[in-house]
Amino acid sequence: MRVAVHQGPFAELPGAVAASGADLVVAAEMITTGYHIGARTHELAEPADGPTAARMSALARETGAALAYGYPEADGGHVFNSVQLIDNQGSRLANYRKTHLFGAIDKDWVAPGTEAVVQADLGGVRVGLLICYDVEFPEMVRAHALAGTELLVAPTALMSPYELVADTLVPARAYESQLFVAYANRCDTERELTYCGRSCVVAPTGEVLARAGAGPELVHAEITRDALVASRLENTHLADRRPDLYRGTTA
Amino acid sequence: MRVAVHQGPFAELPGAVAASGADLVVAAEMITTGYHIGARTHELAEPADGPTAARMSALARETGAALAYGYPEADGGHVFNSVQLIDNQGSRLANYRKTHLFGAIDKDWVAPGTEAVVQADLGGVRVGLLICYDVEFPEMVRAHALAGTELLVAPTALMSPYELVADTLVPARAYESQLFVAYANRCDTERELTYCGRSCVVAPTGEVLARAGAGPELVHAEITRDALVASRLENTHLADRRPDLYRGTTA
Repeated sequence: MRVAVHQGPFAELPGAVAASGADLVVAAEMITTGYHIGARTHELAEPADGPTAARMSALARETGAALAYGYPEADGGHVFNSVQLIDNQGSRLANYRKTHLFGAIDKDWVAPGTEAVVQADLGGVRVGLLICYDVEFPEMVRAHALAGTELLVAPTALMSPYELVADTLVPARAYESQLFVAYANRCDTERELTYCGRSCVVAPTGEVLARAGAGPELVHAEITRDALVASRLENTHLADRRPDLYRGTTA
Repeated sequence: MRVAVHQGPFAELPGAVAASGADLVVAAEMITTGYHIGARTHELAEPADGPTAARMSALARETGAALAYGYPEADGGHVFNSVQLIDNQGSRLANYRKTHLFGAIDKDWVAPGTEAVVQADLGGVRVGLLICYDVEFPEMVRAHALAGTELLVAPTALMSPYELVADTLVPARAYESQLFVAYANRCDTERELTYCGRSCVVAPTGEVLARAGAGPELVHAEITRDALVASRLENTHLADRRPDLYRGTTA
């Protein structure tokens, strides 16, 4: 499966997807509206099956690429910071609501999700969904690995000076929990924030298969189950866990 | 507190400690005997208060530096891969037995420890002890952070091609669990293994305060509670955890 991360404006997503030749394109957190938009988060929020989802379904059908993208989701009077996965036929496969809210930017405007692990099968690959700050919590990625996630997809809006997260934490997650990670960031500015780019696709060996720079870019990598199986045979972290010793961390 | 990591032979430890001016010197996993030594692990194992411990106590008293060092521990017919912490008066403060055994090198010769979090107060700093492969499990470092560890000390015997652990996982641990980490590796060869050096001291911001290269070296860094408090105010991961969502990972 060819997995691409789109690092650039929403307006350029259709062209980038069409040109990518990818099986799956991952776009940034709340890419449909912008992230640091205050009250407009509520004005622009849509249901998971709203008009923007319909546009994304059409884009997927037209290009033959599956899509994962962040957007503000309206549901029953609540707004969530969500990511939706749409297959290359335009079908909505899964929707995840960010569970770890980042400071006032999130907490002032969206409600936290309550479901840790949301997955779907995409072309025979078990894809899991997280958003931005969620990935900084190793427990969340571990929960995915234990639930069978093979490719973890994470739209993000990571700002300077937190390059460490993209460069260090994301590869650590892939290695310690033995899965592929596709991490799609922004590279523009929004009010006082400068997003730092550095989107990436990382293998379960920890190897960075593709890494964007600080500007607009689409990067991609080929991921295979063979590579996952080989890495898990070599790196037996999941089998070597001792959950009895960790119980205090979830009490 | 000035924390140093000794990356070099056991025979050079006394001179390095004396010259370091450090408050605490951390040495590698099983530095007293060698690590990949097969049956000699049993022949050379000593009680936690054995003759090697007495020599290390004397070294601590003579130099005024606290010491943390790895050694094979004999206790009641069992052998453990352990780390002992001795204060600058020569008193044995804490002893931890590796809980995550690494492949046949460990599993063929030592029994797993059963206690996840072993700590001691050293000059007003809460010091926690882990060994090598333990650190690759984020749950173990998290357990330390939740139990109040401020400085995590980890003797290791990390071989090529696993530089990723020293370069990527260790800084990720410091940042995601908001504590200092002192990680002391070897840089020599032993049978078919080449240890990769890259010992380090990392701040809770993820900043690498000191990093050794691939050869013998003692590197050190000053750590302060002020820096820890400042980092935890800025990086609120411990407060932002949602343990209810992680419960499946410790079931």
